[in-house]
Amino acid sequence: MQKLIVGLEERSYPIFIGSNLLGCAELLLPYLTAGRAAVVTNTTVAPLYLESLRAKLHDHGVETIPVILPDGEQYKNSETLGAIYNALLSSRCERNTPLIALGGGVIGDMTGYAAATYLRGVPFIQIPTTLLAQVDSSVGGKTGINHPLGKNMIGAFYQPKAVLADIATLDTLADKELRAGIAEVIKYGLIRDLPFFEWLEQNVEKLLAKDGDALQYAVLRSCQNKSEVVAADERENGERALLNLGHTFGHAIETGMGYGTWLHGEAVAAGTIMAADLSCRLGWLRKEDVERIICLFKRVNLPVSAPAMGVEKFMQLMGLDKKMVNGKIRFVLLKRIGCAVVSGDVDPELLRQTLVLNSARG
Amino acid sequence: MQKLIVGLEERSYPIFIGSNLLGCAELLLPYLTAGRAAVVTNTTVAPLYLESLRAKLHDHGVETIPVILPDGEQYKNSETLGAIYNALLSSRCERNTPLIALGGGVIGDMTGYAAATYLRGVPFIQIPTTLLAQVDSSVGGKTGINHPLGKNMIGAFYQPKAVLADIATLDTLADKELRAGIAEVIKYGLIRDLPFFEWLEQNVEKLLAKDGDALQYAVLRSCQNKSEVVAADERENGERALLNLGHTFGHAIETGMGYGTWLHGEAVAAGTIMAADLSCRLGWLRKEDVERIICLFKRVNLPVSAPAMGVEKFMQLMGLDKKMVNGKIRFVLLKRIGCAVVSGDVDPELLRQTLVLNSARG
Repeated sequence: MQKLIVGLEERSYPIFIGSNLLGCAELLLPYLTAGRAAVVTNTTVAPLYLESLRAKLHDHGVETIPVILPDGEQYKNSETLGAIYNALLSSRCERNTPLIALGGGVIGDMTGYAAATYLRGVPFIQIPTTLLAQVDSSVGGKTGINHPLGKNMIGAFYQPKAVLADIATLDTLADKELRAGIAEVIKYGLIRDLPFFEWLEQNVEKLLAKDGDALQYAVLRSCQNKSEVVAADERENGERALLNLGHTFGHAIETGMGYGTWLHGEAVAAGTIMAADLSCRLGWLRKEDVERIICLFKRVNLPVSAPAMGVEKFMQLMGLDKKMVNGKIRFVLLKRIGCAVVSGDVDPELLRQTLVLNSARG
Repeated sequence: MQKLIVGLEERSYPIFIGSNLLGCAELLLPYLTAGRAAVVTNTTVAPLYLESLRAKLHDHGVETIPVILPDGEQYKNSETLGAIYNALLSSRCERNTPLIALGGGVIGDMTGYAAATYLRGVPFIQIPTTLLAQVDSSVGGKTGINHPLGKNMIGAFYQPKAVLADIATLDTLADKELRAGIAEVIKYGLIRDLPFFEWLEQNVEKLLAKDGDALQYAVLRSCQNKSEVVAADERENGERALLNLGHTFGHAIETGMGYGTWLHGEAVAAGTIMAADLSCRLGWLRKEDVERIICLFKRVNLPVSAPAMGVEKFMQLMGLDKKMVNGKIRFVLLKRIGCAVVSGDVDPELLRQTLVLNSARG
């Protein structure tokens, strides 16, 4: 087992990474002193891990209240959030009752947001069970829900007390979900870690084959990258925005296609290629590097272009993205592989070319 | 004009208190550098102050987006919150677009909560136009909405950038609202400021007559008390709970009677008398001091007993209050006038006596 600390002063917290950590629930006991906790999960994860987690915690004197939600990005909304509040209120959860998120990114984001806002804030713990959640969404304290007009439009920065990433839970992960998670892993290489990108070029098939050591290394290295960025810029006033590589295009795809149609990681993959394409048009990234990136995504069988939504719709959806300042869309772009920058000054004609070509390439 | 600072390190902010401050909108300009702001208000306040505020800000180069909500505690819920989000999204409000709350406690609480959660947090400014909002709810960063099962169950601690309390706006305040606000003013005297309680005994009729100097003094002294408490304990881990004198009983009344039936301050008045009664039964407060408190509330024509909701319903509603730790209700009680304490160990029989007598007294 490995332990990383996200350094945020009095909000610092550990990330535990290893195999079969769900069997080591005692790692969580320091955060469960109230003797009660609510476990929020979904209909896919509950049959796999809920009862064994509850039994383990029960053995340590912690009683749990299960809250089981439907599975999918299309349920990351105010109605499902209301169902969490109702469950917490009817079980009389109090200010010191922690919420445990057991599931993927949707469960983590919604549970974290419920924890941030129930009784003006209760403690919470992340137990991510998808690769995407382990390498990205469970770390850093971004929580929230979607709005019909845009992804993650409603939310809060709210840090967990601890993250428990059990690599063994990836054994049951659907292949499509695994591939979507790898998109966010590649992201770290692209924005700030060329050696990791090169490692992925060498080892991505091991990840696809669910090799435990490779997965653990990829999760650890991703979390190291993420926690360094978050510790330097918790509330995304600067550097943290680089983690959104591919997300401005990606969010437009997710919102435009209807939440749940594309997995988040799939949309980020297509969005990353679009960002690379635009970086190339600006004269920053070399053509052969764009091809190198496309090649890696293709090996993972991730989409490398957007669906044909139409340029106008794309532009409109991106205009609603959070990454705007005074009406200008800010893009995360690549100077080279391993070095991302934020630019709020992209020639609209170049952007249009990227949209036209990438949503036609299919 | 007087200026107070709420000392919360990097979240510190000024409270401006004075007459006709709405005419001095330049006080707000340091917080409106984006050149755009959304003004959230209600159908009662909008005809009185919205257009003049917008015109003033326009003169200083700040364009405003009006968001006008229905008036009343019964609208402080997730539906109205959703309407605020919709308005912000359709006007493409961004991360640096501040929200200005122009209205009473309901508008302030909802606008603050919308600001805390829209795009994971945007700046906000309080312009309280009721006495209750000026002396209490606009200061300290408690924001939120009600849930059918309990008051303020969903919310966040989120501090404003500035508070502008214009005493002149109280000229148009309904008499019933003025009296409800005085309940929270008396609260400060009771929990920590005996000289202020004595001043109120001398001067409460001046407040009822809307004497400008008396009102300004009462607002200032209340805000001084509140900001000292909040600066010492922002997130209510200790001393801040004292500000909830009368609120455990009061919230049960508001929820039980249906939001908007009793004004918040009216319910707090009845709740304060119940807390005083219970403090007396515990042998803390003297009987003559309970009578002294009742006497002051009666001069303000505030309710001094709860509606006949029934003891069982009262107990159940209080069990859902946030002020609980491990299943025990914590009450704010009075050791003497000017000195409140929190107790989690109240003899249930004494509590029952208070409930029986005070919800029958009528």
